[in-house]
Formats: sequence, C-alpha cells, structure tokens
Amino acid sequence: MRPTGPTPRAETFPVNTPAAAQVFTTVLTQGPLARLEVARRVGLSPAAVTKAVRPLIEAGYLVEDVAEESRPALGRPAHLVRVDGGRALFAGVKVTGGEVIGVLTDLCCRIRVARHLPLPDRAPKAVLASIAELVHDLLAAADGLRAPVLGLGVAVSGDVDRAEGTVRYSPFLDWRDVPLAELATTTTGLPVTVDNDVRALTVAEQWFGAGAGLSDFAVVTVGAGIGCGLVVHGRVVAGAHGVAGEIGHVTVDPAGPRCHCGNHGCVEAIAGEAAIARQIQEATGVELVDAAQALTMAREGVPGAREVYARAGEAIGRGIATVANLLGPERVIISGEGLAAYDLFAEHIRAAFTAAAFGSAAECDVQTRPLPFEEWARGAAATAIQSFVRADT
Amino acid sequence: MRPTGPTPRAETFPVNTPAAAQVFTTVLTQGPLARLEVARRVGLSPAAVTKAVRPLIEAGYLVEDVAEESRPALGRPAHLVRVDGGRALFAGVKVTGGEVIGVLTDLCCRIRVARHLPLPDRAPKAVLASIAELVHDLLAAADGLRAPVLGLGVAVSGDVDRAEGTVRYSPFLDWRDVPLAELATTTTGLPVTVDNDVRALTVAEQWFGAGAGLSDFAVVTVGAGIGCGLVVHGRVVAGAHGVAGEIGHVTVDPAGPRCHCGNHGCVEAIAGEAAIARQIQEATGVELVDAAQALTMAREGVPGAREVYARAGEAIGRGIATVANLLGPERVIISGEGLAAYDLFAEHIRAAFTAAAFGSAAECDVQTRPLPFEEWARGAAATAIQSFVRADT
Ligand SMILES: [Zn+2]
Ligand SMILES: [Zn+2]
Repeated sequence: MRPTGPTPRAETFPVNTPAAAQVFTTVLTQGPLARLEVARRVGLSPAAVTKAVRPLIEAGYLVEDVAEESRPALGRPAHLVRVDGGRALFAGVKVTGGEVIGVLTDLCCRIRVARHLPLPDRAPKAVLASIAELVHDLLAAADGLRAPVLGLGVAVSGDVDRAEGTVRYSPFLDWRDVPLAELATTTTGLPVTVDNDVRALTVAEQWFGAGAGLSDFAVVTVGAGIGCGLVVHGRVVAGAHGVAGEIGHVTVDPAGPRCHCGNHGCVEAIAGEAAIARQIQEATGVELVDAAQALTMAREGVPGAREVYARAGEAIGRGIATVANLLGPERVIISGEGLAAYDLFAEHIRAAFTAAAFGSAAECDVQTRPLPFEEWARGAAATAIQSFVRADT
Repeated sequence: MRPTGPTPRAETFPVNTPAAAQVFTTVLTQGPLARLEVARRVGLSPAAVTKAVRPLIEAGYLVEDVAEESRPALGRPAHLVRVDGGRALFAGVKVTGGEVIGVLTDLCCRIRVARHLPLPDRAPKAVLASIAELVHDLLAAADGLRAPVLGLGVAVSGDVDRAEGTVRYSPFLDWRDVPLAELATTTTGLPVTVDNDVRALTVAEQWFGAGAGLSDFAVVTVGAGIGCGLVVHGRVVAGAHGVAGEIGHVTVDPAGPRCHCGNHGCVEAIAGEAAIARQIQEATGVELVDAAQALTMAREGVPGAREVYARAGEAIGRGIATVANLLGPERVIISGEGLAAYDLFAEHIRAAFTAAAFGSAAECDVQTRPLPFEEWARGAAATAIQSFVRADT
C-alpha cells in the first residue's frame, strides 16, 4: 500500500557546514540559549554563530525571544535563541515481533500523534506494507498540524548498519541483510534512517533527554531483553562488528540458568521477562498465563516470587556496575517496560551496583526513567531528526 | 637532586593548528606516506597538507624521500613523507612500588636508553628525587645522541588526572592529590605529562603499536593486576569519575575467591599474580618463595598447578569477552609481565573468549604482545610525545 496522504514539501534546511550543524544541534538539544552562550559552548566566534543563526531564523527553524524572566532592570534584555519545534514533523516507527508502533513528533521530538498496528507477518515485504500503512495514518493525522514531515526513522532490534541503512541480522524477525532504508524510502517517499532500537532510544536521550550535554552515559533497557546503549566521547558506540552494549550477556553467575546465547547466568537469563516468569513458575509451581501475572504474584507476596525479582535486580545492578567499571559514565539511565516492576527490584539494583562498582565508579548517577510503549518509536524519530540536521554537512 | 645534564634547547615546533597536528600525527603514526595519501586520510586538501608539511621539513621534523621500491618505470617517482625520529628525544618514567624505570626514546618512540633505580621510599618527595636522578642519568646518556630532550612522561597506577597533571589517588603509593606534573617540571626542567600507567601503555599502542590506525581497540595487561586501556572513537577512555578499564574487577564467579575490592571472584582475584600464587599454594601445599616458582611448578607438571593457570586463563578470556560484548572493539591486545605464563593459559583465554563473546563480537582480533619491563616506561614517553605534538593546537 502506497501512502496517499500529503506529499512532504521540498524543504531547504540552511545547514550545510559542520559549524552550522553544531550551532543548530546545540540550540536544539540545550536551548533556549543566548547567542554568546551558544558561541561559548560550540567554541565559535559570536560572529560565526550569528552567521549560522540568521538563515535558520529566516527559514523559521529558529526564533529569537526576549527572555521575560531574565529581563534586567537596566540595560538591554537578553535574547534567547530556541528551535521552533512546530516548524517540522518527523515519523518514527518501532518494529516489534507482534506490532509496528509509530509516532509523529515535532522537531523537538515531542510526540504529537501515536498509532500502532498488529504485524501479521514478519517477512520483509509484509513488514514494509505495515510500515507504509502506519506512516500513511501518521501523515493523514499530520494534515491538521500544518508542518511538513521531513523524515522517517525505523528502529529494529539486532545488528543494524545505520550508515548503510541495512538490517544485517535481526534474530526475532529472522532477517539477514535487508536494505530497509532504501525499501522504506521507496514505499513512503520519505528520507529514512534505520537504526538498532536500543541505540535509537539512546539518541533520544542524548539529544532530548537525560543525556543532553553529557559526553559519556549509558541507557540500560529492562524488559523482554536487557539492552544497553553507550555514549562515549559524545558519540553512540556501534561496535566494529555490529555488536555493542550487550549488557544482557554479561555473566553474573556461571552456575546460573542457561541463556539463549549458550552461556550460563547472563543478566538476561536471570532478569529478562521470560527468565523471571520461568523462575517464578519453578519457585511457586504455578503455571503463569502471562508476564503480568508474575508481577501480580510478587506484589501479592506469593512465597518465592519476590526473591526472583530480588535476584533479577541484583543481576541488573551487577551488569550496570560492569559498565561503570569499564567506561566510567557520568550517568546511567535505566528504562524499559520492565520498569513496571521497579518497586520490586529497585533497592536490589542499587545495592548490587554499589557493592560491585570499583572505587569512584560508584559516584556514577544511576537514574530511572519510565518508558511508555511509544518511547521506542520516539527513539526512531530522534534518529530521523539527527539525520536531517546533519544531512548536508 | 637537580639534574645537571644538558639543558633542553628551546625548540619551535611548527605545529600550531589542529590541522597541522593531525597531519603530523598521521605521518608519525602511519607514515611514511605520500602527501596525497596524507590528504586523503586526514580529509584535507593536498594544498593544506603541503602548507602544514613545509615548515616541518624546514625544522627537520619531517623528511621527504623517494621511495626506491615504489619508483615507477615511467613517470615521476613517489615521494614519501616520514618523521625523522632522531630529531628529538623524550624521557618516560614508570613508578612501581619498588623501583623507577626510565627510558629515553626518539620521536618515533623507539627506545634508545633504558635505566632503573630502586625506590627506597614511596613518599612524594622521595619519589620525585628518584625520578630526578633517573632523568639526570637519561639526560647524561642523551648527550651522545645529539638531539634535544623535549618532554618527560611519568606513568603511575591509580586515578590520574592527565589534564591537571595530578595523581588523585594511587593506592600502592598511598598518594592523594599529588600535583606530580608541576613538581616534576620544577625538579627536571622538562615539560611533564602524568598519566595512568595502563592508559600510557594504550597511548603507545595507539600511536606506535598494534592500535595504530584503529578507532576502537583495547589493551589488556596481565600481571600483578589485570588492567585494561580502552580506545573508543579514536580516543583513550578516562572515565567521568577517574575509573575506567577496570576489567580486573569484572565478576567471573560470585562464589570465587575474595578480591581486595571487597567482591568475590573478580578476574584479578583469580588471575592476578598474587591470586595465582595463593591458589597454587592451596592446591599443592607448597609454600612459594616467589611468583616465578608458581610458573616453574606449573611447567613441571606439579598436580593442581596447571589447573590454577587454566582457571586464570578462563577468567581473563571471560573478562575480554565482556569488553568485546559491551564495546565491540576491532582488536584486543593482551600484554603485561604475566604473559611469561602465556603458554600455560593461552588456549583457555581463547576458548573462554570465544564461548562468552556474543554473536559477531567473537570476530574481534585478539592478539598478544610481549611486554619487556621497559615497555611501561615507553608508554610514559608516548604520552610525552603526544603532549608535545598537540601542545600548541
Ligand atoms: Zn547470554
Ligand atoms: Zn575486585
């Protein structure tokens, strides 16, 4: 199915040098800021900043306001430069095993519309048709928002080569070497960015979340899998061979349960959703109907159920300590649908992290952040915004 | 004691822009190279490269040769630009618990002179006096080499702030917040760079060894401690809180021996020199006189001794797999004085790495590199060369 919604307008985005991209990125991720402050943060002269800012104001991407609250009693009021979020829209789609989840965000990555569709078939052709239908719905919804849709991000778990736009290997979709960006561009007519789902979420935190302004931080996602996105020296780590951030396969206990990777006692084999359900079945003898039941049993105090969550928390805490001991990030942001059980394992995560962190690595700021289901799709939109800002530089 | 050797000549190093530093660094670490190839690798125009190269040739830091072997049958012969290593000398000092080890290297980090002195006292004042005496010896030896000594690097284990030149915390010296760079500059008259010893070794590999040209690699050192230097996105990882690369405290077995960090079954608690000696004593009932005896017993096939090395190799291999799973480096270089036992644990390192590496992370190239005792001091010299090349940019 081809989209029949509004055709995206051709846009000239007046950012075509690395310096201009840096100025725009700084205002987008850290603004509103005074011009002088932008100059200081990017290490450019105020004149160079003014040169970069002028065409962006003319094209409507930036606006300059008088900061009412900071207006001095005497002298000139401070002018703050900020991005006009409503100037452009971006679509983000997360492909899961059972559905495609889509959002439409503004340029500041604020969600304006969210939709999801069941995924009847995981073959590339069927997934593309579902993506096209979802994007069509989003574009139709964008009609009333009076802004062009300038890009689409698609997030998939597995080994994704963002630069090539290819899904090299996705175990849960059973895909190998699918040129998804090219295919989705043909189907939707939009410029498409494809990235690994955890890395996409990390980009959203880096540009629009708890990682903004930090050069070294990690995002740990807890849910069906245990994943990790790493930002080191200001850039997301992708791994030379397509693997990085595999905190789920850090060994916690070689005598622990077998993991699907072939090893024993990986974090994921103890703290992943399926592992928790299995351990609760074993501990209580109750056959679970779904993951939510595991949570209910632990909250109701069924003997043995709470202990499973405690061990899961300990495993996650040890995994996070390993990341901290190796990389020394400023902050670790724990997120993911597994946070629904956070009350059951929060203290165990923290205690295990503190015990296993080496020396001052324990000073790392460990935060949690709830993750509504649209957040993964928002991560995909964030990669599209990033590609748009950097496209011509 | 103040140095009485030759006073370093005032030198004008004609590198004062980031582009010129990048050109010089590329030729230094990857050369000899044709100018066009330099331009390609640093992303500058050939004219910009020529502009950067000219004053460096005039000052004697670079030379241009006709590459005899690549001389074409017809047409102009290729001229290759290379660094004249003999143009300048650098001193490097590693401070250990029992001695100070010093080398004098040329600009290409080739060792010209090596010396060591016992360290009678670990107080900062005494260590400084020993460093000064050692540097004095090195400078005297440099007399015949007809090149100026342009910098000193000092490597210390522990939490070192290179930018500040401060040893924030060194457990084995029992130092806190010692402004070592400033003190050593006063004592020796040389510009001083202070860095963590494992990071210094990593810099030597990055600029002059098996890491040259790689943007992501790791150095794992095996010996009294198990350390790790990480290069991610082309830069050495220092950690936001002074801790990074603590592969020695990755948990391998929570039921394993207690580690000095307070946890159980860390890599270092199984594979560090003292841990190996202790485990061999326990397994054999023989009281060891030194670490070398552990090695002899394992080589002679004393029952139980080989198994201790096998478990050590397995722990190291698991630690390396954790680094590969989280960061996906292109290469891991195993080094350190512990490599003397390499024949006893090489296959166990490799087997454990392969088993614990997740998916294509197993494609990481794991190499070994023997480490003579001067190599740590050479790492310190490499940091001094790095500081020299980047000083005015
Ligand atoms: Zn696993
Ligand atoms: Zn430890």
